Amino acid sequence: MTKESYFTEDGSAEAVNARMGDNIDPRLAEVMGSLVRHLHAFAKDIELKPEEWDLAIDFLTRTGQICSPERQEFILLSDTLGFSMLVDAINNRRPSGATENTVFGPFHVADAPIRQMGDTICLDGKGEPCLYEGRVVDKDGSPIEGATVDVWSDNADGYYDVQQPDVQPKFNNRGRFITGADGAYSFVGIKPVSYPIPDDGPVGQMLAALDRHPNRPAHLHFLVTAPGYEKIVTHIFDGEDEWLSSDSVFGVKESLIAPFEPASGDTNWRAPFDFVMVKA
Amino acid sequence: MTKESYFTEDGSAEAVNARMGDNIDPRLAEVMGSLVRHLHAFAKDIELKPEEWDLAIDFLTRTGQICSPERQEFILLSDTLGFSMLVDAINNRRPSGATENTVFGPFHVADAPIRQMGDTICLDGKGEPCLYEGRVVDKDGSPIEGATVDVWSDNADGYYDVQQPDVQPKFNNRGRFITGADGAYSFVGIKPVSYPIPDDGPVGQMLAALDRHPNRPAHLHFLVTAPGYEKIVTHIFDGEDEWLSSDSVFGVKESLIAPFEPASGDTNWRAPFDFVMVKA
Repeated sequence: MTKESYFTEDGSAEAVNARMGDNIDPRLAEVMGSLVRHLHAFAKDIELKPEEWDLAIDFLTRTGQICSPERQEFILLSDTLGFSMLVDAINNRRPSGATENTVFGPFHVADAPIRQMGDTICLDGKGEPCLYEGRVVDKDGSPIEGATVDVWSDNADGYYDVQQPDVQPKFNNRGRFITGADGAYSFVGIKPVSYPIPDDGPVGQMLAALDRHPNRPAHLHFLVTAPGYEKIVTHIFDGEDEWLSSDSVFGVKESLIAPFEPASGDTNWRAPFDFVMVKA
Repeated sequence: MTKESYFTEDGSAEAVNARMGDNIDPRLAEVMGSLVRHLHAFAKDIELKPEEWDLAIDFLTRTGQICSPERQEFILLSDTLGFSMLVDAINNRRPSGATENTVFGPFHVADAPIRQMGDTICLDGKGEPCLYEGRVVDKDGSPIEGATVDVWSDNADGYYDVQQPDVQPKFNNRGRFITGADGAYSFVGIKPVSYPIPDDGPVGQMLAALDRHPNRPAHLHFLVTAPGYEKIVTHIFDGEDEWLSSDSVFGVKESLIAPFEPASGDTNWRAPFDFVMVKA
């Protein structure tokens, strides 16, 4: 019952953190201690007003309440504040030349069909066909055999199949490909299209208040795995997309922009891209 | 479409804040800019792991989903992280000698009955009677006439009347008192008892993980208003309470600890306390 333990404006974060007990996970103490310090520094830096605090409480409450099995508004909030990309970056630092990570997104499906090289993943016949091809290699350029290239993209209307569960066929614009001894992969998909993130909830209201648009530039998702190597969670982007420099979730990295070249064969486009993995 | 606008780990906060448009409220830009900088600095300081981010998303979602017209878990979160007290402190700095603010809490009722000086506010006859008396004065010690002293406390079981809407009488342990020319106030209430904040939700789980208890030390709430003066939102605390130095919402300030003296008249206790107001 010492005087020091009472709250003061100057010592606010210290007063809160001093309250943590002894029977606490050390990592939790570290994380919460830092969170409290930064949250309090934020309020002090901008001298947060009571009516702004009211707005924040209301915003967070509505963000939680709109969440459902089909919608995760807090992830959307994290994404649009660049926080998801930051956590991804911190945890996936790689040497120069290795393929960079980007956000995973909510639309991956674990059990997409395993297909043969050259197969098409676009099952509804809509959209501009594009040949995707390249190699999965290590840092020395040696091919990686037995790598799984798991790909998913939106359809020509900007929706992933899981967003339209009543639309057949299933697994449209998805597939898994296993590399052979040459490390090569190839498949036909569509040239992806840009789409807005769900913007009819609190996060959409925040973006509007910040004078930001909700669009993501056109991209394909990839999850590349191979025994003994760090998994790669990434996209490749169309460098001509109008939203390339203003992705609403900050997913674009310069190294992930693929050339989409006009092609003269069975597909309108060709997008070559190699995946460079690092040892786990 | 400049290279600078893409996300990098080092420039993460700048990349996010650069995205704000021109058509934005300047104060919102200031607040959000600072929030993003501090949130990103937090993630970097502790190198937040993906599984910790998962936990945070789940925690925030559950915190939002448990909110209802009767329960505001995000306010509870703000309170238990000392954030509510900090916002209150930032916005209610007063000269030395003036009565300090503390958190408002969720249990105020705007239309509590106006009572006569000396009346009792405890209508159920439970608890230890205590005479509260003092004066409402300005910084020079001059009495303030026409000040409203609005008081509310828990009952002998640790509940506010609004927490037990089916229990009569209404307005138990509440009342408003208007000062006369002498600035004096007096009423009989009970010696308040400590109580836990609601700890059966996400915030309670957080407190348990932090090895913290949910209890608030015994206190009476006051809202003191007078024309031409800054309103005072405060408590007075029982200095003997076992939770005094570990209030779960950090509401205790040393200047708000009142003496609770044994009394020999109609009440068991007497708690003198003066309210010192500053001009608005």
